Amino acid sequence: MSAEIICVGTELLLGDILNGNAQYIAKELAKLGIPHYYQTVVGDNLERLQKAIEIASYRAQILIFTGGLGPTPDDLTCEAIAHYFNSPLIERADIIEDITQKFAVRNRVMTPSNSKQALIPQGADILPNISGTAPGIIWQPKPNLIILTFPGVPSEMHRMWQETAVPYLKSQGWGENIIHSRMLKFWGVGESALAERVSPYLNLPNPTVAPYASKGEVKLRVAAKAVSESAAEQLIIPVEQQIKDIAGLDYYGADNDTLASVVGDLLRLSGETVSVAESCTGGYLGQMLTENSGSSDYFWGGVISYDNSVKARILGVNPEDLEKYGAVSAVVAEQMAVGVKTRLGTTWGISITGVAGPTGGSETKPVGLVYIGLAAANGEVESFEHQFGVARGRSLIRHLSACTALDILRRRLIKRK
Amino acid sequence: MSAEIICVGTELLLGDILNGNAQYIAKELAKLGIPHYYQTVVGDNLERLQKAIEIASYRAQILIFTGGLGPTPDDLTCEAIAHYFNSPLIERADIIEDITQKFAVRNRVMTPSNSKQALIPQGADILPNISGTAPGIIWQPKPNLIILTFPGVPSEMHRMWQETAVPYLKSQGWGENIIHSRMLKFWGVGESALAERVSPYLNLPNPTVAPYASKGEVKLRVAAKAVSESAAEQLIIPVEQQIKDIAGLDYYGADNDTLASVVGDLLRLSGETVSVAESCTGGYLGQMLTENSGSSDYFWGGVISYDNSVKARILGVNPEDLEKYGAVSAVVAEQMAVGVKTRLGTTWGISITGVAGPTGGSETKPVGLVYIGLAAANGEVESFEHQFGVARGRSLIRHLSACTALDILRRRLIKRK
Repeated sequence: MSAEIICVGTELLLGDILNGNAQYIAKELAKLGIPHYYQTVVGDNLERLQKAIEIASYRAQILIFTGGLGPTPDDLTCEAIAHYFNSPLIERADIIEDITQKFAVRNRVMTPSNSKQALIPQGADILPNISGTAPGIIWQPKPNLIILTFPGVPSEMHRMWQETAVPYLKSQGWGENIIHSRMLKFWGVGESALAERVSPYLNLPNPTVAPYASKGEVKLRVAAKAVSESAAEQLIIPVEQQIKDIAGLDYYGADNDTLASVVGDLLRLSGETVSVAESCTGGYLGQMLTENSGSSDYFWGGVISYDNSVKARILGVNPEDLEKYGAVSAVVAEQMAVGVKTRLGTTWGISITGVAGPTGGSETKPVGLVYIGLAAANGEVESFEHQFGVARGRSLIRHLSACTALDILRRRLIKRK
Repeated sequence: MSAEIICVGTELLLGDILNGNAQYIAKELAKLGIPHYYQTVVGDNLERLQKAIEIASYRAQILIFTGGLGPTPDDLTCEAIAHYFNSPLIERADIIEDITQKFAVRNRVMTPSNSKQALIPQGADILPNISGTAPGIIWQPKPNLIILTFPGVPSEMHRMWQETAVPYLKSQGWGENIIHSRMLKFWGVGESALAERVSPYLNLPNPTVAPYASKGEVKLRVAAKAVSESAAEQLIIPVEQQIKDIAGLDYYGADNDTLASVVGDLLRLSGETVSVAESCTGGYLGQMLTENSGSSDYFWGGVISYDNSVKARILGVNPEDLEKYGAVSAVVAEQMAVGVKTRLGTTWGISITGVAGPTGGSETKPVGLVYIGLAAANGEVESFEHQFGVARGRSLIRHLSACTALDILRRRLIKRK
């Protein structure tokens, strides 16, 4: 028994998008212990879609489709499935009703073409799509063959997968031997340096430990195979604890933790608040701090002081210092942090000023040079110089700046305890 | 005549990596005008690899493999190809020599397992790998079938593709017709509504027009097949112009344009500046406006007024109005926009206040309700109510809010002309 992933969309054949959906479902199948041996990508073409269905239906017993459920004429997944299995397409009144309501909430009227999304093969069940208009189906067109369809929009697909496909597949007996994992996250240490410190763990058979690195963050995936999640946890926990002990403060969290959520939890615990003063990041740090619901408990706001006039006028940075040291300097970073902390009345103030590039660099202040300021509850002020390197590019320099600012506050909040 | 991409590797089936190689080759094939209708992913398994070769060899004439060329026992691509076409594997002395030299340069000695990489099907030519040890092959095992293999390491694969595969494919007459495309971008219109307005264009043979939608944005890809990029442009331009005429202000840009870059260009053109006051987006709008280098020409900064005290203290929102109408209201949105515009001294002020959720919603102010305020150069103030719907989720509601704010300013800047 195995599954096959079929991703439908000419945009995949043209290379317009990366096939993130295949990776997502592949991971999910591995977690449930469902083997899958092939993935197929096919364009928005009725004949070729049917041929892909034919081949897959002979070599797999669970066919998982993504894409081709939209309202336009080139969305053909349901039609191809129905054609191939000689089933009529039935317009479902409950889907029409659901789509109409979703349009109404957004103050829009359902267009005639959307009614196409209500056509599903006779006998198929609906896989509800909570966040979008296109529902999926779950259908057994013949013995030993189950078809599941999902829209191509990743956010909609993920939610449908978790809320409807996973419970269904578990009810069918899958997920008995599962792979359960924990992603340990680190900041402020390089991949190879961390790998050397934890090298004995990288050869364990169960759980396995594998390093990943991206955008300044290093992760270790600790994955255990066991009959249940709790049995897997028993294997993971001691290894996780030993790795945490080795990593010390470089370890910041696991799984869904982010630097911002960890900082937020620490602030909430101590009943403190933070505000931000951002220059080169232009709001990126504030955006990260407010990604989590409930961040109003500890984040009060900030000032985006992109132009020097805003640094002086709103944050109270001394114009003479701006002139003398330049906007990208330790002095200005510290005054920005103090300024925002004082004006907004928060416990902490944190600031970022730097050269994100690609233009604006100079011999003494090259692209990638960033100063982070931290004004503390007790009146202390510090600043930190970072050189992220001109080669990293504007977007990554901004990301590293915001993450490093969060990491500085995180270490400070922990060390103080 | 068409190609098929076959990506080999169990790591793809486990979801450990994204299939960037398929996207790369897909783009390259499109550039050369080589149609391809299917992509297959298969694991490191001899039998299943041969089955994938069998299927592909009946439906395509150029088979392009990536992965499975390494020195370990689970690297099976060459072996599977040779087996399937009943050809012996020959150890090539020139490959052994090449690998030995590459190891010598790195001060290492070739391991016995590397000699496996010197085995290629009898009659196949070598596709040299300059940056790695595993060479590819180019082989015609039977009439009307060409096989090309590449390693899975992206940097090696890209270089081999450019330096050896492209010249070869061009020598076979490919690349005479190329596919060149323009991505037209729209905001403020649904996918189905736009598709209906431009429906006659969706059936054109050349250029083709295909709709895409994601996160509130709708795109139309206009793709032309022609002997050169300039010939393709001749086909694209009239269709592009007609679609723009139909779409009116719903069209905002093409290719690398973003709402923020378009707004920035309009402001730069008129010598005007903008500042932002953000509540539920927490800096997202400022972050978008500063993604482009040079945004300091028109973006001065802003205030992240997440907490009500910041709205009152820094932006000057009337505390009585905050109490009476609530932070999420047209009145407060307007005062935020005026406040930031006045305090920062910019031409325009734009504000966002809303309920991003998932908590914080009420009967009268549900999750997804967002007010956007716009304070104009001439003193006029407006506000706009949007209901993005509770089901969209926090992250998407914030994204839609920031994009919609940019779109409101964009329309205003254009209409004024």
